[in-house]
Amino acid sequence: MTGARAVGTVDLDVDERRLAWVYLSRVVQGPCAPLSALIASVGVCEAARAVREHELPAALRGPTAARRDIDSAARDLETMRRIGGRVITPDDDEWPQWRMLGLDQLDTDRDREAAVPLVLWARGPLSLRSASERAVAVVGSRCSSGYGMQVAGDIACELAGRGWTIVSGAAFGIDAAAHRAALAVGGPTVAVLACGVDRPYPAQHDRLLGAIADSGLVVSEYPPGVAAQKHQFLARNRLIATLGDGVLVVEAGLRSGARNTVKWARRLGRPAMAVPGPVGSASSAGCHRMIREGEALLVTRAEDVIEEAGPLRLPVGDDAADPGHHLRGAEAEVYAALPAIGSRQPRELAQQSGLELATVRAVLPSLELADLVGCDSDGWFRTRRSG
Amino acid sequence: MTGARAVGTVDLDVDERRLAWVYLSRVVQGPCAPLSALIASVGVCEAARAVREHELPAALRGPTAARRDIDSAARDLETMRRIGGRVITPDDDEWPQWRMLGLDQLDTDRDREAAVPLVLWARGPLSLRSASERAVAVVGSRCSSGYGMQVAGDIACELAGRGWTIVSGAAFGIDAAAHRAALAVGGPTVAVLACGVDRPYPAQHDRLLGAIADSGLVVSEYPPGVAAQKHQFLARNRLIATLGDGVLVVEAGLRSGARNTVKWARRLGRPAMAVPGPVGSASSAGCHRMIREGEALLVTRAEDVIEEAGPLRLPVGDDAADPGHHLRGAEAEVYAALPAIGSRQPRELAQQSGLELATVRAVLPSLELADLVGCDSDGWFRTRRSG
Repeated sequence: MTGARAVGTVDLDVDERRLAWVYLSRVVQGPCAPLSALIASVGVCEAARAVREHELPAALRGPTAARRDIDSAARDLETMRRIGGRVITPDDDEWPQWRMLGLDQLDTDRDREAAVPLVLWARGPLSLRSASERAVAVVGSRCSSGYGMQVAGDIACELAGRGWTIVSGAAFGIDAAAHRAALAVGGPTVAVLACGVDRPYPAQHDRLLGAIADSGLVVSEYPPGVAAQKHQFLARNRLIATLGDGVLVVEAGLRSGARNTVKWARRLGRPAMAVPGPVGSASSAGCHRMIREGEALLVTRAEDVIEEAGPLRLPVGDDAADPGHHLRGAEAEVYAALPAIGSRQPRELAQQSGLELATVRAVLPSLELADLVGCDSDGWFRTRRSG
Repeated sequence: MTGARAVGTVDLDVDERRLAWVYLSRVVQGPCAPLSALIASVGVCEAARAVREHELPAALRGPTAARRDIDSAARDLETMRRIGGRVITPDDDEWPQWRMLGLDQLDTDRDREAAVPLVLWARGPLSLRSASERAVAVVGSRCSSGYGMQVAGDIACELAGRGWTIVSGAAFGIDAAAHRAALAVGGPTVAVLACGVDRPYPAQHDRLLGAIADSGLVVSEYPPGVAAQKHQFLARNRLIATLGDGVLVVEAGLRSGARNTVKWARRLGRPAMAVPGPVGSASSAGCHRMIREGEALLVTRAEDVIEEAGPLRLPVGDDAADPGHHLRGAEAEVYAALPAIGSRQPRELAQQSGLELATVRAVLPSLELADLVGCDSDGWFRTRRSG
């Protein structure tokens, strides 16, 4: 009897936390750094209570004012059950904790949108955590050319065929070509929406989104029923960049939203790549500018993408003399800024490398995963001595 | 009488020097660093005498052995007169002294081909010195695509129309498209050959070379009658790079000779640029690789080329705080390596900037021309104090 009761208590607790996450997701609808800070400080149930009872720090009164009196959590969960979906919260095994680390280290004082999502609403059989373990975001122009559709399809096919998840935004043009290529070879694909996952957006992609939900994953940080609004696309782009090992832009006009996704990738310390095209083509002008200005690396094929976005390669044999020589970009710079002996704080590493503190914080965990650096009370240090 | 005789003596002296240059050019046929060193040390007439009489340092015995007994200088000059050409020697006003400075600073111990040419054989009405003052080398694949021909033509037309000289190699494909575009708008163009200027190479470009000789300039460091040989194309590429403010590659396969010209540009501290194209096109693969690996900057139009290759822009107004902020590439790095107060030797600048000594030596004169640096017995210094 005691055992059964204990299980019941645990379930109740789990349910209460889940209802709290869902309630808060509906209240703020999108990233909300002050709320994330409150949850980190007092826990999700207490944070939900505080929001409900208007016991809030000043920074949270505005963002919660409109909807804090609406608690549709139970109904939202019921809606998700009905459409065959689910809510993924940070409590769940499926939560891509590792992917969210980069986002968690960004400076939300400067940009409140740079927060970890509270929950993700999802439809589809894939585990978000597994699907995002080896993933590339493929994005680009909605007004793509035949050339762009061809190249996006070719590269996404090759990547998906090798088991890489294609993350994109289900928009017209390059996004759709990338998703379709992954589906065509039975590869994993994740569509990240700027509206509720019960809404087909764009409407003409109803069938495409259905196919993605059948074998891949459709996710959003917006609760069911929420319509797509302009600022939500920018927040959505940060999730697309967050869920991949890198961002590939296939075609982009000079004012394309793809550049925004590339900026997120760069803030997260992940490689941004762009495919060139004919110089007369307006749909390649944004790619050419990003390459020219050093915002994105020129790539022409799936192998290039894997080379950039692939997992850190561990040095072996002769390379032991310089364990970090395989690294690139921010990872190489942060590693180089670490002394051969002794530790450094992220702030010191930022100063020495000239990188932003947020970038340093974002890449340290991946260097740690690669067993190149470690961390103790003195700061970060190299785990291998160079020869 | 004395006056007339003095003039006669001067003429004789000039003639003797010219005959010496021409004799030596025929003996070594191409760049010869040890001979350039000997001329710099003892003068051209004495060097010619030493070669004729076999009184040579060991390094020069090999390069002069085959032809030192042949003196066809007078006949060569007569040949040039007959075909309406001329020889340009370092004694002539037309000698592009300024352009040759970069080449003169390269390390010929490492690469004997990196020498200043002894003379240049030329056909055409343009002054080589004037024509190379504002010039861009446009090179690329012989097996170019329709796309490449179109883009080479568009960019060269625009550059030539704005008074930029198009320097190229008169080869099939991109070279020919660039020359033709310049001719079509009545702009200046210079063809640099790997054989004598009396030889149409390739033969199918006889008419094109004739047109260039009619309004532009056909030049070569090889005496008349010399046939094109493989190694001469590499030496020729160094001259193409030397005569321009930058090198633009429009299309290049992975094994294209254009990459060699780009390497020369980089050694000379001049911008190397490449035009992207469709990723499936083999004729763009070399351009994409050079951009990807940081060997060339991506450009898409004439404005981009002018921005990179254009004359150093002098800081004005607010920019006085950082006089060097307009600089790019090696120039920016060398300038940054100079202290705000005090002087540095080129070797110290190389150490501090991480650039090769040869590159440092090559860019200092252009910084001097831009009035940003000066030189005295203590070394090089900034001419302007940053604010």
